[in-house]
Amino acid sequence: MPSIAFLECSRCHAHLDPSTPQTVCTQCPDSPAGTLYVRYDLSAAQGLEARNKIGAIDPSRPSPGMWRYQSVLPEVPPVTLAEGWTPMLLSRRNPNVFLKEEGANPTGTFKARGMSMAMSMIRHYGIRKIAVPSAGNAGGAAAAYAAAAGIEAHIFMPKDVPLANQVECLSYGANMTLVDGLISDCARIVNERKQAEGWFDLSTLKEPFRVEGKKTMGYELVEQSGWTYPDAVFYPTGGGVGLIGMWKAFEEMEQLGWVAKNNGNGWRRPKMIAVQAAGCAPVARAYDAGESASQMWQNAHTFAAGLRVPKPYGDYIILDAVRQSRGTVVALSDEAIFQSLRDWASNEGIFLSPEGAASTAAYDHLIATGFLKPSERVVLFNTGSGNKYTDVIGHALGLTHA
Amino acid sequence: MPSIAFLECSRCHAHLDPSTPQTVCTQCPDSPAGTLYVRYDLSAAQGLEARNKIGAIDPSRPSPGMWRYQSVLPEVPPVTLAEGWTPMLLSRRNPNVFLKEEGANPTGTFKARGMSMAMSMIRHYGIRKIAVPSAGNAGGAAAAYAAAAGIEAHIFMPKDVPLANQVECLSYGANMTLVDGLISDCARIVNERKQAEGWFDLSTLKEPFRVEGKKTMGYELVEQSGWTYPDAVFYPTGGGVGLIGMWKAFEEMEQLGWVAKNNGNGWRRPKMIAVQAAGCAPVARAYDAGESASQMWQNAHTFAAGLRVPKPYGDYIILDAVRQSRGTVVALSDEAIFQSLRDWASNEGIFLSPEGAASTAAYDHLIATGFLKPSERVVLFNTGSGNKYTDVIGHALGLTHA
Repeated sequence: MPSIAFLECSRCHAHLDPSTPQTVCTQCPDSPAGTLYVRYDLSAAQGLEARNKIGAIDPSRPSPGMWRYQSVLPEVPPVTLAEGWTPMLLSRRNPNVFLKEEGANPTGTFKARGMSMAMSMIRHYGIRKIAVPSAGNAGGAAAAYAAAAGIEAHIFMPKDVPLANQVECLSYGANMTLVDGLISDCARIVNERKQAEGWFDLSTLKEPFRVEGKKTMGYELVEQSGWTYPDAVFYPTGGGVGLIGMWKAFEEMEQLGWVAKNNGNGWRRPKMIAVQAAGCAPVARAYDAGESASQMWQNAHTFAAGLRVPKPYGDYIILDAVRQSRGTVVALSDEAIFQSLRDWASNEGIFLSPEGAASTAAYDHLIATGFLKPSERVVLFNTGSGNKYTDVIGHALGLTHA
Repeated sequence: MPSIAFLECSRCHAHLDPSTPQTVCTQCPDSPAGTLYVRYDLSAAQGLEARNKIGAIDPSRPSPGMWRYQSVLPEVPPVTLAEGWTPMLLSRRNPNVFLKEEGANPTGTFKARGMSMAMSMIRHYGIRKIAVPSAGNAGGAAAAYAAAAGIEAHIFMPKDVPLANQVECLSYGANMTLVDGLISDCARIVNERKQAEGWFDLSTLKEPFRVEGKKTMGYELVEQSGWTYPDAVFYPTGGGVGLIGMWKAFEEMEQLGWVAKNNGNGWRRPKMIAVQAAGCAPVARAYDAGESASQMWQNAHTFAAGLRVPKPYGDYIILDAVRQSRGTVVALSDEAIFQSLRDWASNEGIFLSPEGAASTAAYDHLIATGFLKPSERVVLFNTGSGNKYTDVIGHALGLTHA
């Protein structure tokens, strides 16, 4: 594992010291302060020989999961529940469509990756109490990894989050507060109370390590594509940190020489497609208006709980990545998302989360508009298991429990 | 992949023809007719050289899952959703306790393994319609794999199954019937109607292939233990087919020379611990009484829905395996099971299904009684994700949805 060289601000590029816990940039001239990226000395991981060691199986650790990429992750003892290395499923109807099944993770969503990495660092720094504002699944994952690490967790979620998120927080023994509002209201409460309570704020992008765990999705999708880039990647975008993490992974893989050049001269990164719900589409609106950041979305509502983020902290990075990649941002109605969820369940045997179904609906949409050709090879992210939305989807199906 | 030599009755050892669909033994002199085992010519898989090929990664199939064991499975194109090859997690509190995390499977339970194999054969035989009586999770898995295979599915479940099972059956497009009774009542209905409706009965152990998929749990636990046997295996036993499948796997692995002998002369298979709920414990009662088969349990009740099986069809095989292995059968109260569920969530970060928590509670019980020593290396099966029981566990926690 490489040692961390420094933390770099994504806005002003200042360097910060990784030997003590950091939150966001302390040097940024303007607010909001930039989120911090972890930078390493990656010389030991350079080249194909180092890349080929990744797949080597250690019989004493049969479930390395995302920690197979330890050569590009911080050198700390992992707090792991076998997150990552999730299946890449080929669609039965389209040989160019792959689904990245993040529902196979511990706690049933991709949030496990970020929390595994962040909680490993929390333990490394000797922090005892953390707080997280969450739209739901990050709260469940934080509670699980805090339990595994022996850390005290305080979770703040909107009161209308799926029942699964409440049940897992309580089962894992976290302190749960349900808030009459959105994740932005939860974040405000954490911010107001954290100093007095002695909580470390584990809000996404307000510390450097959750994004570092999520970047492993980028490594995996490239490795599972034979170390090549697909033509496009669809990512359901609430906070959008998965997309940001993958974009960082692509940069690292190019520096390392791990990804094959797809023409004689260089790489062509996948078009990054950020997918939102029509009822909460701040990034889509900013993209359409040509803005570099989003504005707070009023009255956010969608049954895709993970997309109810009225202003993502990393909006400027998402918009930049989408534009650099010649991708786009789309927003789908809840009706279109639910229709795609039923389509994939009944025709592919895959029970998507509502957020994942936003990806599949967006793919159909961009094929219909001609933005993408059916011959282009795409990876659609299902960020969580449909089983975490039993009450939400059951309600949409007209089911009530006996 | 090996070709099937014949199907062998587990009672009278008659040989049946695998070239057409079979149900149970047609030659048994007494009723009930014996369940059928798949027998192969395994000469090509013999020895360590063949075993060592299992781990070889095919970059074009990044998610082989249980199909990594294709050299000991029927030679058919798999209907797969990347089931199997689930994590083996080491307890944080006890270096001799491993948890086999079947919640990472598609549809969130081990039932995916059996349905992947059985549905592959259903498609191979050209069957168009299947029916399944289920305590819940087999129904969800059957619906998923039927959707993936393009097969018409008819699922019969008790009306008080967890909401997740109902939601997944409907989402996958299966025909769902909720029955005012238990799985045994569902089985009776399927049996009465199947001929007129043209359904193939996919009841567990009434066709040879679900057990064949589940046997891969036995291969995995041995491979993930460095090709050695642990001292004991805990398995939550409703129908008990996972235990039966593992027992068959051990026999095959010994014939193949794949498992290391743990003394100079031979093997010592793990003690098989069948775990039931006190409210439905037909196998425990038969074991204690020294009987070779169970009697129908009256008024079965437990919050561990998968253990509400009042008379398992394979009871005679379970009892025989437990006795041969010098294991035992235990039955735990719902209170003890729920307490262990909370213990593992809050201290290990693992959200067990109620059935899985029966395994962990049984381990604590057998350490307390002295049946097992803390120094013995054990594998506890969590057969499904706690997220499939959100309503059940939420209710036990006193949560109601907003």
